Amino acid sequence: MPNQELKNDLFLKACRRQPTSRTPIWIMRQAGRYLPEYRAVRAKVDFLTLCKTPELAAEVTVQPIDIIGVDAAIIFSDILVVPEAMGMKLIVEEGRGGPRFPTPIANADDVRNLKIPNPAKSLKYVYDAIALTQKSLNGRVPLIGFCGSPWTLAAYMVEGSGARDFRKAKKLLYDNPKLAHELLAKLATSVAKHLSAQIAAGAQAVQIFDTWGGTLTPDAFREFSLRYIQQVVSEIERNDEPVIVFCKGCGQSLDAIAATGCDVVGLDWTTDIGSARKQIGSRVALQGNLDPAVLHSSSDAMRTEVRSILKKYGNGPGHIFNLGHGIDPEASVELVKDLIQTVKSESVSFHKAAD
Amino acid sequence: MPNQELKNDLFLKACRRQPTSRTPIWIMRQAGRYLPEYRAVRAKVDFLTLCKTPELAAEVTVQPIDIIGVDAAIIFSDILVVPEAMGMKLIVEEGRGGPRFPTPIANADDVRNLKIPNPAKSLKYVYDAIALTQKSLNGRVPLIGFCGSPWTLAAYMVEGSGARDFRKAKKLLYDNPKLAHELLAKLATSVAKHLSAQIAAGAQAVQIFDTWGGTLTPDAFREFSLRYIQQVVSEIERNDEPVIVFCKGCGQSLDAIAATGCDVVGLDWTTDIGSARKQIGSRVALQGNLDPAVLHSSSDAMRTEVRSILKKYGNGPGHIFNLGHGIDPEASVELVKDLIQTVKSESVSFHKAAD
Repeated sequence: MPNQELKNDLFLKACRRQPTSRTPIWIMRQAGRYLPEYRAVRAKVDFLTLCKTPELAAEVTVQPIDIIGVDAAIIFSDILVVPEAMGMKLIVEEGRGGPRFPTPIANADDVRNLKIPNPAKSLKYVYDAIALTQKSLNGRVPLIGFCGSPWTLAAYMVEGSGARDFRKAKKLLYDNPKLAHELLAKLATSVAKHLSAQIAAGAQAVQIFDTWGGTLTPDAFREFSLRYIQQVVSEIERNDEPVIVFCKGCGQSLDAIAATGCDVVGLDWTTDIGSARKQIGSRVALQGNLDPAVLHSSSDAMRTEVRSILKKYGNGPGHIFNLGHGIDPEASVELVKDLIQTVKSESVSFHKAAD
Repeated sequence: MPNQELKNDLFLKACRRQPTSRTPIWIMRQAGRYLPEYRAVRAKVDFLTLCKTPELAAEVTVQPIDIIGVDAAIIFSDILVVPEAMGMKLIVEEGRGGPRFPTPIANADDVRNLKIPNPAKSLKYVYDAIALTQKSLNGRVPLIGFCGSPWTLAAYMVEGSGARDFRKAKKLLYDNPKLAHELLAKLATSVAKHLSAQIAAGAQAVQIFDTWGGTLTPDAFREFSLRYIQQVVSEIERNDEPVIVFCKGCGQSLDAIAATGCDVVGLDWTTDIGSARKQIGSRVALQGNLDPAVLHSSSDAMRTEVRSILKKYGNGPGHIFNLGHGIDPEASVELVKDLIQTVKSESVSFHKAAD
């Protein structure tokens, strides 16, 4: 991995709760459809081809660094490339309600037929994209790798697509917990390998997205989601690369999330970041948590919300600003730029040395 | 209102945290499509006609008492009849993704043109249905009235329908909080009148459904949702009829919900009912909170989850068993009956006198 000096290490320092001159910011799904420059690339290739063409993936990964000025890049990819590498057919069609698996996991044979992928072979395009991105970034900002949590991937694999209530996936947990654990353990191993390989290729931090953890009861969340996130965190081969865990809708399980061994807990906008800092901020850094809907409102409203979050977090290090979920394709680029400048300027006063 | 002796007052006693011989149970949307008997009535009339025909509404309201044996009835109606009574055109078409307002609230004039309804006129069919239901119930179980929370109604009225992220409704809160407050205050007055009239007609308890409170930041939830729920609770004309407040996805705001003046806090399945009892159970009764997805699994899995919830709540009064959200149309009637019998038998041991 490239060990060139980072020109902007605010993000990594904040992940490690080390003092910084201001609060760093990046945005979940920052390489995405809200950017005309992204749409221009996507006009030429479909989504999966973009994921699997390292030159193009690197190009869109770097776009938000140049255009909106965030403090970290996140590799352009998709959480569902891991199940695909395990042998599942993955289809992403335009305007058809997201990616889907036409042959979902339905029984024990399906689980047993899943391969633990050799990432260096089946996911090589991700690591090539990371290496190319690092060349292009040339130390301007750090690069984040990512994956889906085992439960979130399992939910997609059993449902075949996103779902309103994950009835089939939950039926598996309730009726056949043994098979669910078998599936989740396989996914945890695969995902840990994928994150380790991303770090080996040059990712300087990794984030685990548990998009569907919040659909579970607190007990099921711990048994079927968090337990495997913890396994992933412990199995990642890393030096000091921070691990961020973002579980959407899980604000009632913050203590348990902070205990997974991660360095940073990502918060959605339904958690009060001030309360979260009191609860777990002495153990981990916090990332978040502007309501993404604010990016459809006015600059004034956005500034009010940003100030409120900065003030709630309060003085000192350990805060990475972000949205509480991925940015909407219809968000205003001007407002996004405004947001980033606002965080950069308004956060300075919270980082004065206390001497 | 009918003051006949109730043959089964377990639900009302539990709402008041008075000792009972077992835990009472009812089910959100218990008069609904999962019941063949309900579908038979619906085959004859459309949804709104069913709401507005007191004889039919009373018929489907009583069905689950006879068929599945719940401890309370809830009047068959819809939260959106209030905005309709305020002057909004409401359309409910079969299989078209739920009810919608073809002319949503878009500006200050739209808000000002909304009427505070005279419930005795425009919502008379609800009260007539309540009176008929009481005749038919004849004291077997108590009858619950209900309404949507001001924020939940406002969200529908501004979006025109249910939405994924309530972008337009949130834009109103963020960009024009003054107009939002004007709309919400009008809704709170209308809703309080509607609940008072339901009680006058014979409802022995009322529930306020805040289906979309959980889409807000904790601050916005308090300012735009809970504040108006509190207003509704304080303005309801009642004797000792309990008020239940159910805010979906708001488990991080339990203290504030318990402080609205309500008697019962409804919990969705993402909150641990044991923790909730420790936190607020000395002030209010708790209702909930089985994951509705359990009703697609096996009887064994259902029993395990029921026992877990009963045990988490623990000994003594103040628990009304329910799902953590409305029952799915595809739920198995046999499993629902099984659930109700399980709660009735398994809960007895938690209500032994402690002497």
